Amino acid sequence: MKVLVIGGDGFCGWPTALHLSDQGHDVIIVDNLSRRKIDVELGVDSLTPIAPIETRLAVWKEVSGKTIGFEYLDVALEYQRFLDLLLSERPDAIVHFGEQRAAPYSMRTPAAKRFTVDNNVSGTHNVLCAIVESGQDIPLVHLGTMGVYGYGWSGSAPIPEGYLTVKVPTPDGDIDREILHPANPGSVYHMTKTLDQLLFAFYAKNDALRITDLHQGIVWGTQTPQTERDERLINRFDYDGDYGTVLNRFLMQAAIGHPLTVHGTGGQTRAFIHVRDTVRCIEIALSNPPKRGEQVSVFNQVTETYRVRELAELISKITGVEIANLPNPRKEAAENDLNVTRDRFVALGLNPTTLSEGLLSEVRDIANRFKDRADTTKIIARSVWNKGMETSPDLVK
Amino acid sequence: MKVLVIGGDGFCGWPTALHLSDQGHDVIIVDNLSRRKIDVELGVDSLTPIAPIETRLAVWKEVSGKTIGFEYLDVALEYQRFLDLLLSERPDAIVHFGEQRAAPYSMRTPAAKRFTVDNNVSGTHNVLCAIVESGQDIPLVHLGTMGVYGYGWSGSAPIPEGYLTVKVPTPDGDIDREILHPANPGSVYHMTKTLDQLLFAFYAKNDALRITDLHQGIVWGTQTPQTERDERLINRFDYDGDYGTVLNRFLMQAAIGHPLTVHGTGGQTRAFIHVRDTVRCIEIALSNPPKRGEQVSVFNQVTETYRVRELAELISKITGVEIANLPNPRKEAAENDLNVTRDRFVALGLNPTTLSEGLLSEVRDIANRFKDRADTTKIIARSVWNKGMETSPDLVK
Repeated sequence: MKVLVIGGDGFCGWPTALHLSDQGHDVIIVDNLSRRKIDVELGVDSLTPIAPIETRLAVWKEVSGKTIGFEYLDVALEYQRFLDLLLSERPDAIVHFGEQRAAPYSMRTPAAKRFTVDNNVSGTHNVLCAIVESGQDIPLVHLGTMGVYGYGWSGSAPIPEGYLTVKVPTPDGDIDREILHPANPGSVYHMTKTLDQLLFAFYAKNDALRITDLHQGIVWGTQTPQTERDERLINRFDYDGDYGTVLNRFLMQAAIGHPLTVHGTGGQTRAFIHVRDTVRCIEIALSNPPKRGEQVSVFNQVTETYRVRELAELISKITGVEIANLPNPRKEAAENDLNVTRDRFVALGLNPTTLSEGLLSEVRDIANRFKDRADTTKIIARSVWNKGMETSPDLVK
Repeated sequence: MKVLVIGGDGFCGWPTALHLSDQGHDVIIVDNLSRRKIDVELGVDSLTPIAPIETRLAVWKEVSGKTIGFEYLDVALEYQRFLDLLLSERPDAIVHFGEQRAAPYSMRTPAAKRFTVDNNVSGTHNVLCAIVESGQDIPLVHLGTMGVYGYGWSGSAPIPEGYLTVKVPTPDGDIDREILHPANPGSVYHMTKTLDQLLFAFYAKNDALRITDLHQGIVWGTQTPQTERDERLINRFDYDGDYGTVLNRFLMQAAIGHPLTVHGTGGQTRAFIHVRDTVRCIEIALSNPPKRGEQVSVFNQVTETYRVRELAELISKITGVEIANLPNPRKEAAENDLNVTRDRFVALGLNPTTLSEGLLSEVRDIANRFKDRADTTKIIARSVWNKGMETSPDLVK
């Protein structure tokens, strides 16, 4: 099928575009390159040396014989061009990664908060609006986040996949109602994904759009079988305080001998998924869209859960690097349990990569190999949820 | 106190600004005049001859001796100017009406859908972000809508004021959880107000902002004691298919002998409030903000409920004008009951104007008096929820 991948130059988008191309799909990347531009703004760079998008596409053509298209286009700001693309290309599906995706960045400054809201909401709404205006039946797969659920809301019950049935008291006794899991976002970024959910619910109801929302955990790992085929296809690896995800940050810190930066007690339990599984999940979701008129289809896209301090202890044990407990720049519970339902992807054949399988190659092939590219002044998290929540000066000069 | 009224030139905003000024508050209107510009776009005009904002303010000064300030400013597009205004004026409270508020307009075209989302979400988020950045403790009162709740969700239970407690099943038995009433918006406009709710919840939680959200019913009536003090202070009265609210439309239709346009069976039950009560509710809400750290305070701002066909029959009986049953351009239930909790405003002293008290003066002083200004080509609703839902050609040439 022909698939538009919005945000197809990013951390999840790029390996997804390659995976789908490798599987024989006709892929067109739509990207405004905002992720690379934010690196410029923050003065940071991927630990891995990522090639420009044009090089990436040329190399992929060279190693696979397959062409991936590219449109330099901002879906939040260039509605008419995006609509024209739908009308000329008539894609069979759209995968939408085109959102600012770092919680710390979304709390960094008023400008970053506003960019996150304006970019994510207008972008997602434009995609929905353009599908309706195109008159085409184009299923949409969107990357949500586990963070829409918050943590600890449902007691001992596992977090369901999107919906749950609750009892509502009435004068005639309790009645059962299925509701979208109540939203409890922990950052402006996560909040935008809770807004997306309401956009999706409306367009599914009013226009019978076929929408899948994937509530993904924290992604770790770097490479997929496709990005490994040539050095110039390498995926990005963020380690900075804004964009680095926790496990990748620990791996890079260990590689350079920097203390592992645990915020608060490290008792936060989070859900994880390897980027290799992300791309498989996207493909499964593309193959299983809801029917027209059905409600938004929600999957929890996670494979394992860990406490942050468990991860730090694991890496510390492997590498001998110490752990530094720093103040927490986020407003969040110090400790939480996490029990996530993830039956839908398992039922559709996902066979996950576990931490125990993938960790050593990450240490060897990525963190140790590229450690000389690290800028140690970018490691400490500097974005805070409220004034006064600053964590620490740099730990290593 | 010093109050900024965002959208203070509009249908609810203008009488609110005058009421607050009359009560001795120091009022500054912030408005981009977008409502007047949309009239230009649609080629329609208020049935009542509204004066330019500068005239309005000069006349108010003349009749009351009081000055109302005015900033021509778009909160969705001019963040820095709005922040500067907070820093220089240091208001004690903000009332936020600055959103595109017509459901039919929000479904009219892709451009109107996008404007509604972009204007309402970015505007509301900018207001929240600027309050935080200003470092000031400024309570915010926002106009929501009963439409966030949808209709018929809670069985025989009345719609609560914002929150309800449900039972969530867990392996250890049901647990009680208070949730924001699930959102079920019926248009892109209503959807934006459900997005606002999530913005408010986040900023109340993360930044301890003090926010009141008023879920208002359909406003009817035109004048308040303040707008009646001079012809040039008159409030707007919309009768067109996009902005006219149902009861005002019937009144104008009756005045010119146009059939009363009921869509579908007219079995839709809706909640109503006179504009005179709107301004009192705003004042009550300003006097009773939540404390810092408390959740968003939600009021249902309604006084009566009627089925649309009951209203049509009432007006038809008074005036002798016939009823025209037209196809419904909206996706909505043909018939619904509506039982709304509105205890909070009643407890705080609201003594509502009922239809039986206010209707005749509306017929006499507004609809009949200004009927020669009506453009009969703008009466039929032309905005449709999906292609193919068009209702009717003009009924009167």
